[in-house]
Formats: sequence, C-alpha cells, structure tokens
Amino acid sequence: MKTDNDFVKAKIISIGDELLIGQVVNTNASWLGNKLTTNGIQVISTLTVGDGEKDIMDALEACSDVDIVAITGGLGPTADDITKPTMCKFFNTELVFCQDAYDNVMSIFKLRGYQMSKRNEGQAYIPKACKYIPNRYGTAPCMWFEKGKTVYVSMPGVPFEMKNVFEKEILPMLLGHFKVTPYLSRVVMTTGVGESFLADKIKDWEENLPEFLSLAYLPQYGLVRLRLDGRHPDREFLEKTLDDEINKLIPLIGDHIFGFDEMSIAEVVLDILKSKGKTVASAESCTGGTIAKVITAIPGSSAAFKGTVVSYATEVKEKVLGVSHLDIEKYTVVSRQVVEQMAVGVRNLLETDYAVATTGIAGPDGGTEQTPVGTVWMAVATPDGVVSKVGNFGKDRGNNIERATNTVLEMLRQELKKSC
Amino acid sequence: MKTDNDFVKAKIISIGDELLIGQVVNTNASWLGNKLTTNGIQVISTLTVGDGEKDIMDALEACSDVDIVAITGGLGPTADDITKPTMCKFFNTELVFCQDAYDNVMSIFKLRGYQMSKRNEGQAYIPKACKYIPNRYGTAPCMWFEKGKTVYVSMPGVPFEMKNVFEKEILPMLLGHFKVTPYLSRVVMTTGVGESFLADKIKDWEENLPEFLSLAYLPQYGLVRLRLDGRHPDREFLEKTLDDEINKLIPLIGDHIFGFDEMSIAEVVLDILKSKGKTVASAESCTGGTIAKVITAIPGSSAAFKGTVVSYATEVKEKVLGVSHLDIEKYTVVSRQVVEQMAVGVRNLLETDYAVATTGIAGPDGGTEQTPVGTVWMAVATPDGVVSKVGNFGKDRGNNIERATNTVLEMLRQELKKSC
Repeated sequence: MKTDNDFVKAKIISIGDELLIGQVVNTNASWLGNKLTTNGIQVISTLTVGDGEKDIMDALEACSDVDIVAITGGLGPTADDITKPTMCKFFNTELVFCQDAYDNVMSIFKLRGYQMSKRNEGQAYIPKACKYIPNRYGTAPCMWFEKGKTVYVSMPGVPFEMKNVFEKEILPMLLGHFKVTPYLSRVVMTTGVGESFLADKIKDWEENLPEFLSLAYLPQYGLVRLRLDGRHPDREFLEKTLDDEINKLIPLIGDHIFGFDEMSIAEVVLDILKSKGKTVASAESCTGGTIAKVITAIPGSSAAFKGTVVSYATEVKEKVLGVSHLDIEKYTVVSRQVVEQMAVGVRNLLETDYAVATTGIAGPDGGTEQTPVGTVWMAVATPDGVVSKVGNFGKDRGNNIERATNTVLEMLRQELKKSC
Repeated sequence: MKTDNDFVKAKIISIGDELLIGQVVNTNASWLGNKLTTNGIQVISTLTVGDGEKDIMDALEACSDVDIVAITGGLGPTADDITKPTMCKFFNTELVFCQDAYDNVMSIFKLRGYQMSKRNEGQAYIPKACKYIPNRYGTAPCMWFEKGKTVYVSMPGVPFEMKNVFEKEILPMLLGHFKVTPYLSRVVMTTGVGESFLADKIKDWEENLPEFLSLAYLPQYGLVRLRLDGRHPDREFLEKTLDDEINKLIPLIGDHIFGFDEMSIAEVVLDILKSKGKTVASAESCTGGTIAKVITAIPGSSAAFKGTVVSYATEVKEKVLGVSHLDIEKYTVVSRQVVEQMAVGVRNLLETDYAVATTGIAGPDGGTEQTPVGTVWMAVATPDGVVSKVGNFGKDRGNNIERATNTVLEMLRQELKKSC
C-alpha cells in the first residue's frame, strides 16, 4: 500500500522566484520525482518557494517527517541566490572555504576559456556542517546535510547540472544510505478512445487489482496513458504481478494500444521502420516542423528519418513538393487533394518508403466558415498509395499542432502494421 | 517590499500522482503563477501532492494564511480522481446534483458526437457548499469555496480547460473579490555574456535600486534573462520607476541585449523581418526542425517564414539543397563548407531573402576526435553573401539543439541589424 510507513519517503523543494511567478517551468521537480520514484523512493510532495529566507526556512522545517529532502536552486553567484546562507542558518553553521570547490570552479572557467571573477570565488565557500559533493558541470557546489533521520541534499537549479550531479553522485549515495522498497510501473499507451470509455471497458479488471497496485489515467493530446504501479518488498513477485495484470489488460483494449512504457508514437513508428529497413520523410505546413522535431529528438533517428520540407508558403508547396496550382485554387491549401500531393511529393523528393504530411489552420486566426481554426488534413504516402483524413482539433494553436502530430504518426503506424 | 502583509497572497496546489512521479511536467503551476503574479496577486508557494485524501487535506489545511488557494487536478471521471469528495470532507459538506453542471456535460458530449456514460453523469454532482463555475471546455466542473478570509478555487488539471476557465471565469471573480496591489515587471533578454560578468557590469546599478524593486538573473541555453519587478500601490509611479531603471540599465549591457519582456530571439527576428518585408527559410540537420518549430509556434509567422528543409540524410543535403558531394567527402558533413552551402541552397530553393542553416553532432553518439559531440556549424545566408561559425555545446542532445537554435537566430539578428 502506498501509505505504508516502511517506504523511504522524500520531499522535493524547488527554490526560485522565477518558478513561482511562472517565468520558468519547473522541469527539475518532475525529473527528480521520476528518478526518486523509479529508484524506490516515494515522493510525498514537491514544494516551490521563492528566494526569501523565511520561505526557505519554513519549507526546510516542514520536512523532518521524511527521509530525504531534495533541494534545487538558489546556488548561483548573484545577489538573488540565498540558499547557501539560509542553509547555514537552518543547520546552525557557517560558510567556510573549500579547496575542492575552489578547484572545481577554477577548472570550469579554464575549460570555457573565461577569466574567473571575484564573484565566482564566493562559490568555493560552503557550509561547515555539510559534506561537499562535486558538481563537474557547473560552478555551484552540491551539499549533503544530515539532521535527525533526514538527509538534505542541495543541488543547483540549472537542469543540466542538477541532472548530472544527481545521477552520478547523489543517487548512489542515497541508495547506499537508505534501504528502499522496490517500486515498479507499467504504462500502456492508448489512442483513439476517451478516458471514460476506457474506464468502462476495464472496470472489472481495475476493481480486481491487488491492493498494492494502483491505476491512473492520463489523457493528453488525443492519447490516454494508463499507468499501473506499486511497491512491494519482493521485487520478483511485484514484477510478475504487474506483467500478469498487463497481460489481462491488453485484450480488453486491443488495437487502441500503440505502445508501452512512455514510448511516444514517434518512437514506436521509428522502431518499426528501423526493423523493416524502411525510411520516412515529412511535409509539414501547420505542424511547422514539429513532426521532424519529435522524430529527431530521438537518438539514432537518422537510421530511418531522411528529412522534411516545411512548406509554410503556398509557393513552396507548389515548387518544392509539386502540389498542383490548380488544385490549390480549386480546393484551397487545406484540403484532401493538397495534403495527399504533399505526402506523395515529399516521398518522391526525398526518395523514402513512407511520408507523412499535414496542412491546416493552427490558429488563432485564419479560419473561415468552411474551414474553421483547428481543421487539419493529414496524409500518409506509402509504397502502395496514399491515405488521408481530416481532424478538427479546436482553437488552441499549441494543442492543434501536438494533436495533428500524434494523429498523423498514428496513421503511419496503422499503415506500417498493414504491410507486416 | 515583497513581504508586505498588505498584498493579496495565493498558494497553488496541484493534485496528481502523475505530477509527483514526474510522468507529467507541472505546466499548470507555472502558468497560474504567471497569471496570478501579473494580476497583482503574490504567489507564496506551489505545492504538488498525490491523489491521496490525507495529503490533499493536509495541503488544504496549510492554506488558511493566504487569501487565495488555486487548486488544479483530480476532477476527472475515473476512480483515481478524488478531489471532489475530499473537498466535501474539508468543507464539511456533501455532493449534490447540479443541473447546470449536468447540462454542460451533456452539451460537450453532444458537440463531440459521443454518447454520455453513467460515469460522466457523476461529474454533474458538486459539493453543496460551493459556488458552481461553468467549464465550457470539458466535463469537469469548477468550484469556488470560501472559509474565513480565504477563497479556494478548484479547477480541472487538463491545461487547456484550466487556462480557459481561469482566464474567462475565475480571474475576473478574484479581481472583483480582492483589492490587489499593482505588480509590474520588465525583462531584459541578453545573449553572449555569462551571468557573473553581467552581474559585475551592473553591480552599482543593482545596489542602488529602490527597495520595492528586485532583480533576478535567469540563465538558459546560452541566454541570460534579467527580470526587474516590484509591487507598489501607485501603479503609475511603479511603471515610471521601472522604465527609468531599465533606461539606466540598457547602456551598461549594450549589444548583448537582443530583446525585452520574454520575447524569444525567434520573435525578435520575425518582427524585424516583417517590418522590413523580408522572408526567411531554414536548412536544418542537427536541429532537426526545431528552428522551424520555434518560428511557426508564433502566430502570424507565415508573413515572413516560407519554409524549411530538414536534411537529415546526406543525400538530401546534396540532392535538395545542392551541397557539393565532393565537399562533403573532403570536409565531412559537419563543416563550414557544407553549412554555408546548405544556407545558400535553401535560400535559393525557397526564394527567400535570408536563410539559416545548421549541421552538427547532437549526440549522444556520433562524435569523432576531430568533431566531438556538441560541435555545430551554423550559417546565415543574406542577399550579400553568407556568414558562418562553429559552436561547441557539450554532450546533452536537447541542450545542443536549443543552443544551436538560439545561436543561429542571434547570428541572423546581427545580420539583419547590419542591413538597417
């Protein structure tokens, strides 16, 4: 059960006015939440506070009930960064010079070819009561404190630095310090069916789950992710139970499942293409390069992805992709005729086996009565021909682009399945 | 001063295991933080807890010290959504049928052409003690509670629904209910200079700021954003003081400033292009469509952006962009020669005034001793020729792509300035 007191528990504290006022999205908390959880540490809460001494003190004081407090932010060299003096106050200690921290700051400046400033020398001072943890990726030091049963780790707020120092230094230290209960999860990725209907389809199965497992529904951009997770001292038993339950679940949902374990549709499609030795390209109008971006974000995508033409201007659709000028005049650029010619055109131009294409009105302006904002035509060109369909994804520009991207990649997956 | 007790204060509570375990990034909290702050409401903290009754109750109980508690999540139709019954417990009330909520659920199902299920009928029940707020964008109801001096608003977790209902219904209600102190901020966007050096350059200015203003440094992907903000009962005085201080700041930083108020480099460049009636295209290898995506994410970008060729495969560089096969063999695909030919090639192909191009090793694999992971060649083709430079952005794939995108757009901005 999730509330079992035997589990190792953590709270995450993120420090920074820029997070509170929404100037920066707190990706550190979700990343840390994921790393802690998947390593068996139960995250109880994540709290974001500003760069104020009282708020940070209050946050620290509310954490003596957990085993681990993971703190990010406020360690920079500028005047708004006050985490270090506040930690001194909380742990009743003082800043002292740390040669290792100094050498680290020096080596980073040397590497970047910059001169070290007086301001950065201050980063070599750390609270006397802490264990110094080197941060090889930046000038801010990391710190490990203990008070009662609780370990407090303070890390920089720059995501790249925090992630590296957490994975390489801090996580191994935490797993050596605490005995954790195994946590495992399975995620089933579905598309083409709403949350409520999915819930009705699997109701009996859900109600009969063992009590150490729990299920969550996560709808987003036309997908629903189902997450089944739990904690159990016997890792093998937990693993087997999860697998058994997922095997019972699969036939209840059937073809709405496109993948497992947080794989995006792009990753699933890319794997199929690579296993078949086939290639793909995209021709994008309203998605504006997003299909290319999600594919190329995946390491190794160059094995199957050859390229994209973003044909934002009508003349690019005609001149580069070979879409008929007369068809554009007759049917408009947001039409079955145009999207099919875009898909076939980019497949021919880039000499790939498959190609996807989109053309639509992303919004917020540009809609007409016949073609309102949110209308998107999508096509997949294959060695056997071309298929297309239209979607209507509403008025939000970002939402439209994401949904059109997911939908056309799902169309490609369906075509790839046919040719198995 | 920020800690003045006269300000209207808010806490944000986000509910959902998926947020805690990092399966979903909490963009709602940052969006709400931004809306509350810019409307004069001071955000004290944002707290994320899981879908557990005790955790939600504890979170609610810790909020009687603020004026507004903005709650998102846990209002879906499935078994893991427990916000509504928990609110009943906290406010000592019970669920009752609400005809308006029922009609709303019905109308949404009708619009989508779906049949309404029993499960969704449950969404028409709301706590007796609350004021019902319609959510026209989804089936989850919104709720307004009052307890002591504190207003609690409960909203759905789906970002699109939450944003619409907050802006259109809840924010006007809050601003009618509370008398807020004006808050204003100015952001100066800089590039090409590190945080410490910036801080040294503006030290005297920073130390002499009026005490109701504060300054923050936000480094990210090769940029540093400087935010100057504050609260003051006299809005005009606040506005004038901010403007005066920014006018003093500008000459201290000079050409490192590329824009103001959270404008991205893409927005700045797009504005310049539009004002000059010029067009741009991109040829992207390692950035894989990201330049196109950041440009096309901006509404109205089609006025200046004509399109992109993502030339992931070498043959696309040759065949579509006209890069010399011999040069690729002689200099490799990651070279000055190739990136310049890509930029010129896409400028010719899409018939634009300007074009940017990238080719590099995004990682994590593919590096060589001569061309390590993180090496990126970037070029800008102009009516007068082509300029290029090489960057080394380190080992992180996502970081490389973002930094290369920002850097090449900054190169374009510099070229556009020259032709003023």
